[in-house]
Amino acid sequence: MNKIKENDIILIHTPRKRYITRVESGKSFSTHVGNILLKDLVGLEYGSAFESYFIYRPDLNDIILHGLKRKTQVIYPKEAGYIVTKLNLKNGSKVFECGTGNGALSLFFLRAIGPDGMLYTYEKEEEFHLNAKKNIEMFGQFQNVKMFRQEIGQGIEEKDFDAAFLDFRDSCQYLPLMKSILKPGAPLGMIMPTTNQISLAIRVLERYFKDIEIIEIMLRKYKANPDRLRPEDIMVGHTGYLVFAR
Amino acid sequence: MNKIKENDIILIHTPRKRYITRVESGKSFSTHVGNILLKDLVGLEYGSAFESYFIYRPDLNDIILHGLKRKTQVIYPKEAGYIVTKLNLKNGSKVFECGTGNGALSLFFLRAIGPDGMLYTYEKEEEFHLNAKKNIEMFGQFQNVKMFRQEIGQGIEEKDFDAAFLDFRDSCQYLPLMKSILKPGAPLGMIMPTTNQISLAIRVLERYFKDIEIIEIMLRKYKANPDRLRPEDIMVGHTGYLVFAR
Amino acid sequence: MNKIKENDIILIHTPRKRYITRVESGKSFSTHVGNILLKDLVGLEYGSAFESYFIYRPDLNDIILHGLKRKTQVIYPKEAGYIVTKLNLKNGSKVFECGTGNGALSLFFLRAIGPDGMLYTYEKEEEFHLNAKKNIEMFGQFQNVKMFRQEIGQGIEEKDFDAAFLDFRDSCQYLPLMKSILKPGAPLGMIMPTTNQISLAIRVLERYFKDIEIIEIMLRKYKANPDRLRPEDIMVGHTGYLVFAR
Amino acid sequence: MNKIKENDIILIHTPRKRYITRVESGKSFSTHVGNILLKDLVGLEYGSAFESYFIYRPDLNDIILHGLKRKTQVIYPKEAGYIVTKLNLKNGSKVFECGTGNGALSLFFLRAIGPDGMLYTYEKEEEFHLNAKKNIEMFGQFQNVKMFRQEIGQGIEEKDFDAAFLDFRDSCQYLPLMKSILKPGAPLGMIMPTTNQISLAIRVLERYFKDIEIIEIMLRKYKANPDRLRPEDIMVGHTGYLVFAR
Repeated sequence: MNKIKENDIILIHTPRKRYITRVESGKSFSTHVGNILLKDLVGLEYGSAFESYFIYRPDLNDIILHGLKRKTQVIYPKEAGYIVTKLNLKNGSKVFECGTGNGALSLFFLRAIGPDGMLYTYEKEEEFHLNAKKNIEMFGQFQNVKMFRQEIGQGIEEKDFDAAFLDFRDSCQYLPLMKSILKPGAPLGMIMPTTNQISLAIRVLERYFKDIEIIEIMLRKYKANPDRLRPEDIMVGHTGYLVFAR
Repeated sequence: MNKIKENDIILIHTPRKRYITRVESGKSFSTHVGNILLKDLVGLEYGSAFESYFIYRPDLNDIILHGLKRKTQVIYPKEAGYIVTKLNLKNGSKVFECGTGNGALSLFFLRAIGPDGMLYTYEKEEEFHLNAKKNIEMFGQFQNVKMFRQEIGQGIEEKDFDAAFLDFRDSCQYLPLMKSILKPGAPLGMIMPTTNQISLAIRVLERYFKDIEIIEIMLRKYKANPDRLRPEDIMVGHTGYLVFAR
Repeated sequence: MNKIKENDIILIHTPRKRYITRVESGKSFSTHVGNILLKDLVGLEYGSAFESYFIYRPDLNDIILHGLKRKTQVIYPKEAGYIVTKLNLKNGSKVFECGTGNGALSLFFLRAIGPDGMLYTYEKEEEFHLNAKKNIEMFGQFQNVKMFRQEIGQGIEEKDFDAAFLDFRDSCQYLPLMKSILKPGAPLGMIMPTTNQISLAIRVLERYFKDIEIIEIMLRKYKANPDRLRPEDIMVGHTGYLVFAR
Repeated sequence: MNKIKENDIILIHTPRKRYITRVESGKSFSTHVGNILLKDLVGLEYGSAFESYFIYRPDLNDIILHGLKRKTQVIYPKEAGYIVTKLNLKNGSKVFECGTGNGALSLFFLRAIGPDGMLYTYEKEEEFHLNAKKNIEMFGQFQNVKMFRQEIGQGIEEKDFDAAFLDFRDSCQYLPLMKSILKPGAPLGMIMPTTNQISLAIRVLERYFKDIEIIEIMLRKYKANPDRLRPEDIMVGHTGYLVFAR
């Protein structure tokens, strides 16, 4: 049960580069080192070497960074893990998301809401919607998500959500709508790149929600050299500010 | 179904302080403002005001910060969310943890592994073990955890784990043991407060694992004042370094 | 010439606390440990122990943190050093400052502009002005500073400044005035606590100045334990944003 | 007196790129936009436009980032300003430095020690020594520096220094030597890239010095857009740890 099977999603790992693919026996996969006939991997144990590669089960980090097809910016794991916690997601949660974007955060949500949860995700751009659909079909539990290509100003078919998350430019004008579809007291989250948006968000949130929290998360990587331990020279300086309320 | 019921775990929220308690009708609960007869809360809707309080469903942040009984340091949500992602936890995962500590991270793991997962958590200190047991009984899914008051040097009854996490002082000497109980290629995580431990961990990991990642996560809070937006004066400067490998 | 003399400013150092005082033989100085007759210190070498203390020449950090009389917030060394660099201060520079505050930044400027420079510093609050005067008389080169208790809206007697620095709430409305008193192309700096002020400052600066730079500086301290090296648990999360233009 | 003169060091500023050069009338200077005959600049006022450029007096930041010839890593202004403060440099200070490197920190020191100070700087690599000499001749006060191409293990000709700064790989073994050339109680600074070096430094410092401080400084730049204010996406994650003692 720890063997690579047909149709598995795998991580092909080299010191320099990583690749995500589905194991389809009829196909080959090309890396910067050379070509792999995917049928040669079937039956190998996860974690084992194959030629100059190691083959792992990918985690969501790997998938978001190396597997996801991108049409727009992704939400990074450093934020996603915290968002899941603040939205209090667990098996059975019913979550609202807008916009779907590439579906990166949708994948985190689908994990967190388990087999009994349901994600409703809205995206107005057809290109993003279709791309996210492919990503979630490939990497997520598709039976637990309803994907809409639709502006939320046209109405949302469901209500009584356990949590909601907004990631689009003019999200502040939909905060009264969010209040109406969330269970009373349920958490709302938003991500926004600029301080101006944060100021606006606070002003609107103060009218409809309570317990406003604004944070940013900085992740710093270290070089894994035991005798010369030090942070990497360059780091991500900003992805976005996170806002939560309930 | 959004009403407060007998035996619910609730968050009693005031601008200045927060409290977590179980709703037991026979009892009263005292805050810095005064006393609440808990039976008065039953039947109220979540999110509604009661006297000078607001009553919410607590999220894991609330529980860890305000509800957990502490005998030792806790792992904070900023790290926990990232750990769950890097350990690739999802419904059905079988996870190993040592030491249990207060059970804070156990609660995050229990959420992530869903109804079909199983957590095996070891703690050698009886005091911590018993305290964590109470915390997990109160705030987690107790049916999905096996708690051991035992040093792991004496052997671990299970194997083929999907992931393992270590948080204790001399964890580096148990890395070969971890290798033997994890599925090949499965992820391992550790948290350590000092750079000296990180250097040692890398040296040992290099012999048994691959794909070593070392990071630290900094969380910065902002004051929710829309006209005077700025970070808080004081922030947490360090909790621990995170180490991952597989 | 490395001996403590009458009237020297000294740092009295204990592991737990630090004190700044002037050596006046007639006086005694009380610390949390006990009383020191200051005449007993005269003739001792700097760096030597006296009872349970060590006596050092204080640096500007020591003076700002432990010696300055404070009536308002101070600017910290982490910012001051960078400001001096960006204002391009050197022996002979003529600098404008408003407001004087406690005089902390004035002390940094006085060091940087050397024996041939001149600092013009304005403060509208009499209480701050008088307090800063005492601080600069005690710790700075008083012959190189002209201190004004005056609003700058009433006019500034000098022009052709090599640099200017503003630290007061409505500083943005004086940017045209700054333009008129600075040499063409000379640097201007500002410190502001909130992002709203930064947005406003950029808007005004864009009309009168070029080459706008906005930064923040974070300083993180480590515990000096060689076997357990780690950052301190708590750090300063925010002092202010720095703005520069020319 | 604010006019560009023959032999001035100037900053040629474009939105995309910056250049430092000396105004030598006989020469031309080529930028990514085109060629400038330097004699055309003589007599222009600083801060004024010339074709598509603006011409400024460069500050030390400009010089270090755009003017210095580099053979090795430079020390950045965010650290240099703080170092000058902690070493308590002022007009008349006698400072020891090793190694000279590119001379970047030497330039900061020369500014800080004014017309009456003296810097002694040692560099064992001839290539670095000669390069730094050129940099300091061009951008500093050369009469206040004595530059040695020499290992300090062979002895240092001066003593009674007011401050010392070390920036080279095996600096820890010279700490007893530093103790002997510094005035008692005088400050010592070091910069080191790795945590392992910091641990070693603390161990040695504890034998010879007191009041050990270890810090790191992080500088975060913001995009100067008033309506979309946010940090830059990428930032410097690490330059080095600073160590001070006395």
